[in-house]
Amino acid sequence: MSNETLTRNTKHLLHALFQSGVQHFVVSPGSRSTPIALLLAAFARENTAIKLYIDVDERSAGFFGLGIAKTCQTPVVLLGTSGTAIVEYAAAVAEAHVSHIPLIVLSTDRPAELQGNGAPQTLPQHRVFGELTQQFLSFNLQDDHPDTTAYIDFMVQKSVHAARTDRRGPMQINLPLRKPLMPDLTAREPITVAPLTFHAPTPHFDTQHLTQQRVVILAGPNEGASYQAVLSQFSQAYAVPVIADVLSRARTPETIYGIDALLQAGLVTEAYRPDLVIRFGATPVSARVLQWLSQANIPVWHVDTHAGTDHSRHISQAILQTPLDFLSSHTVTNHQAFYDLWQALNERARHIQGEAALPYHLDQIVAENTPIFVANSMAIRDMDDIFTGQTTQEIYANRGANGIDGVISTAMGMSSTTKQRSLLITGDLTLFHDMNGLMMARKYQLPIDILVVDNNGGAIFSFLPQAAEPDYFELLFGTPLDLDMAKVAQLYDLPYVVLSAASELKTVLANQVAGPRLIVFQSNRQNNVADHQQLLGEHHE
Amino acid sequence: MSNETLTRNTKHLLHALFQSGVQHFVVSPGSRSTPIALLLAAFARENTAIKLYIDVDERSAGFFGLGIAKTCQTPVVLLGTSGTAIVEYAAAVAEAHVSHIPLIVLSTDRPAELQGNGAPQTLPQHRVFGELTQQFLSFNLQDDHPDTTAYIDFMVQKSVHAARTDRRGPMQINLPLRKPLMPDLTAREPITVAPLTFHAPTPHFDTQHLTQQRVVILAGPNEGASYQAVLSQFSQAYAVPVIADVLSRARTPETIYGIDALLQAGLVTEAYRPDLVIRFGATPVSARVLQWLSQANIPVWHVDTHAGTDHSRHISQAILQTPLDFLSSHTVTNHQAFYDLWQALNERARHIQGEAALPYHLDQIVAENTPIFVANSMAIRDMDDIFTGQTTQEIYANRGANGIDGVISTAMGMSSTTKQRSLLITGDLTLFHDMNGLMMARKYQLPIDILVVDNNGGAIFSFLPQAAEPDYFELLFGTPLDLDMAKVAQLYDLPYVVLSAASELKTVLANQVAGPRLIVFQSNRQNNVADHQQLLGEHHE
Repeated sequence: MSNETLTRNTKHLLHALFQSGVQHFVVSPGSRSTPIALLLAAFARENTAIKLYIDVDERSAGFFGLGIAKTCQTPVVLLGTSGTAIVEYAAAVAEAHVSHIPLIVLSTDRPAELQGNGAPQTLPQHRVFGELTQQFLSFNLQDDHPDTTAYIDFMVQKSVHAARTDRRGPMQINLPLRKPLMPDLTAREPITVAPLTFHAPTPHFDTQHLTQQRVVILAGPNEGASYQAVLSQFSQAYAVPVIADVLSRARTPETIYGIDALLQAGLVTEAYRPDLVIRFGATPVSARVLQWLSQANIPVWHVDTHAGTDHSRHISQAILQTPLDFLSSHTVTNHQAFYDLWQALNERARHIQGEAALPYHLDQIVAENTPIFVANSMAIRDMDDIFTGQTTQEIYANRGANGIDGVISTAMGMSSTTKQRSLLITGDLTLFHDMNGLMMARKYQLPIDILVVDNNGGAIFSFLPQAAEPDYFELLFGTPLDLDMAKVAQLYDLPYVVLSAASELKTVLANQVAGPRLIVFQSNRQNNVADHQQLLGEHHE
Repeated sequence: MSNETLTRNTKHLLHALFQSGVQHFVVSPGSRSTPIALLLAAFARENTAIKLYIDVDERSAGFFGLGIAKTCQTPVVLLGTSGTAIVEYAAAVAEAHVSHIPLIVLSTDRPAELQGNGAPQTLPQHRVFGELTQQFLSFNLQDDHPDTTAYIDFMVQKSVHAARTDRRGPMQINLPLRKPLMPDLTAREPITVAPLTFHAPTPHFDTQHLTQQRVVILAGPNEGASYQAVLSQFSQAYAVPVIADVLSRARTPETIYGIDALLQAGLVTEAYRPDLVIRFGATPVSARVLQWLSQANIPVWHVDTHAGTDHSRHISQAILQTPLDFLSSHTVTNHQAFYDLWQALNERARHIQGEAALPYHLDQIVAENTPIFVANSMAIRDMDDIFTGQTTQEIYANRGANGIDGVISTAMGMSSTTKQRSLLITGDLTLFHDMNGLMMARKYQLPIDILVVDNNGGAIFSFLPQAAEPDYFELLFGTPLDLDMAKVAQLYDLPYVVLSAASELKTVLANQVAGPRLIVFQSNRQNNVADHQQLLGEHHE
């Protein structure tokens, strides 16, 4: 059997994806996905723009794709075989859902006649991610009606466009397939996908003057294009202080950093009170900054094409505009003294000890524009409080659902998109969760330093009320893993360095290797709480 | 704040679960789950019948719980924190869905006012597993209306009963919780859960005589109580050959084993044709046996309390009865010669070479009633073709969705239920997928031998048509991982043994250790196909 229809329709699917801007495909092996995988490999061989990655663990593969998508801001395809393999993508899909990342799951499936009837590797895959996907499609690649091919061409382009714009986020394309599954690899018929192009005319906005004179900008996490240059001009021209989240891609030494620690230390007194805060982007890493705005009843406008998200329910105006457009169409006349007051906060001495010293040294020494991926829990809080952004603004994290799963693979996905040396900073618990992600580092010899803060367990819990229950704390929350990082490095053939002090990072990073490397800093959960309480001196609340 | 309501309602939830037969709780640490985790740990301290396991990786935890539930045939609780942590259970839930295992996910959630608003670690968790769960409940543990407590008591008992009977399978109980989350660990108020007991009067069935005289029983995978003794009596009394799946818990040297290989070798000729096949349980491991029944148009009755599942759509009668009740209420008068003909198939010489020799030696030497967990793909096929069941019928596998994910953890869950030494047989690819599952082996020093058939990749694909595409085969299907098993053993502090021949298993297993152990057999994917083709000689189709 030549499988002509399957071969042609699969090629149309792949070409339509490529035409819609998909260049990255992460494939996890399986039987049901055979025709797509083979034709994709053939397509990648003839078209060098296509990047094909093979990741055998679907959970890791999902996050690897997520890492590419969030770094490149382009849609990424995951191809998997039927059954639990598809379900393993769910956690990455969930993160993509919350953080609006265009992740496209091609879920190959058993055909209709094998559904609900005890057939092996068969699950109800149709819309299996439920509300976690923004869009759902299903194609019968073996249907030889000419409408099928045209439908594939059209719907792929339409939906991938939507996944990048108004329905930004993950989607599932379910593909029920009957045996025989072998495509015709000798077919040479040229594939022409009728193009569907989208045009969004550039809007113009009248310039508006803000009458408030104590305006502050809060630049939240931003997965999109950087608007740092325009923000910087705006801030200088109108004396507007900018509190920049470490994930804003806009933090520089001129922006205020570490608002969480400043608020915790009681340093943001009434004198600092803004009469308007303009908030850009997603939910800030700092939980205290939203509490402060709400409790002090400071007016907040949220500016974002998806504005209106605020779990403190305090924003009063949701302005559906990009930060770039907003900055280009507004003027302010802030007081210079107000600006200077805020800027002085950056001069407050930090008493940096223990693992918190790692962001400090990174800030001093990483190569310019180094992509840094930051794990959740302690790592992201320390980076937000301590990293000034003097060297790089390319900071990424999974700050949608904030899981400690999938972090290693997401960072590897990030690293795979650039030849530049990247860095991941993570705790040992997060590393363990997705240790399988290290397989991709080894397999593709990704140029990344994996900096593990090894405090043998869950350090964040020591800051929560349960820390006062010694009877149960280590059992339920501390959860020491006793994972020997040297053995982890051996398993994945990673060069391995132990830092005896955070300041040694400089020497270690200066000594570049070609591929992945594991750098370990031994920390201590007991000391860590005290280290953080002393960060900004005796003003601690 | 004493959190009296939260404390009381949480205790009712836990007591109602216990009263409904839940004794095993697998907890993955987190913040949102704090009150449940603490009160559960306190409950376990005062009640030794409660088994509490801590597994930090939720994907592993889900399968660990599945392993306990499938071995003990009792419902098992998974407790997780909000966000992707819950989604990580999805693959285990999917397997439980297909194989009807009562797995109860307690998903702690953010409260209503934090939903859909950019709050961290917040996902649409309500019915997040969609069709993969059979039941869904949501409790507000912080609601002090007296009806709430009574509702929890009643619904938990009602639903857990259903999860064990007519709605057998996984369920989700979503628990939105507001801060403060600390329960009152000093509360001593006694908890009384109003009992709801279920009574299913024992049915009586009139004895029926089957008029067919060439009846064959096909005992498929069975996760329930063993009916082996009654089946054996029936088979002997009425000269009924029994083809027993390796997962039937009914395979003994008196039953026919390896039907797949026998059919493949063309040995099941017209002389063997039954005039009725009575099929028990789930979809057999052998794909060929259902094809044979369908293609030869042999009448098949499916006997099961959930009868009616057959992806070959060939069964004509679905008899809603347990195999035990069916066997106790039917008589047959088969020809002895027909029985003897079938039995002779067991005497056919097998030419067992390569990795297929492992099931052969296991069969000879494992201790009586050893629980054996079998990975999917090659391992289960070899066990089905070669293991005669002379030593143990306690064979388990994830044969609902047949995933290669989660196998290690499921096996560890199985091992945790007994002090008896268990065994897992798995390939290297399956081991890698859920390598994190080894953490539970180390942490709880589970008495299990982990036998890894290391053929460096996906051996099953060599039997499929894509094996003929050398250009893409290793890249997409063979996927060698080059995982050094000695280093895996070192990472998890496992004693490590390499077999130079399958026959060495005897010496190795005789030398028992106390905790987990890794035993590696180096295989070769190229030789493996030929080894299997020669299994039953030159009759190969």
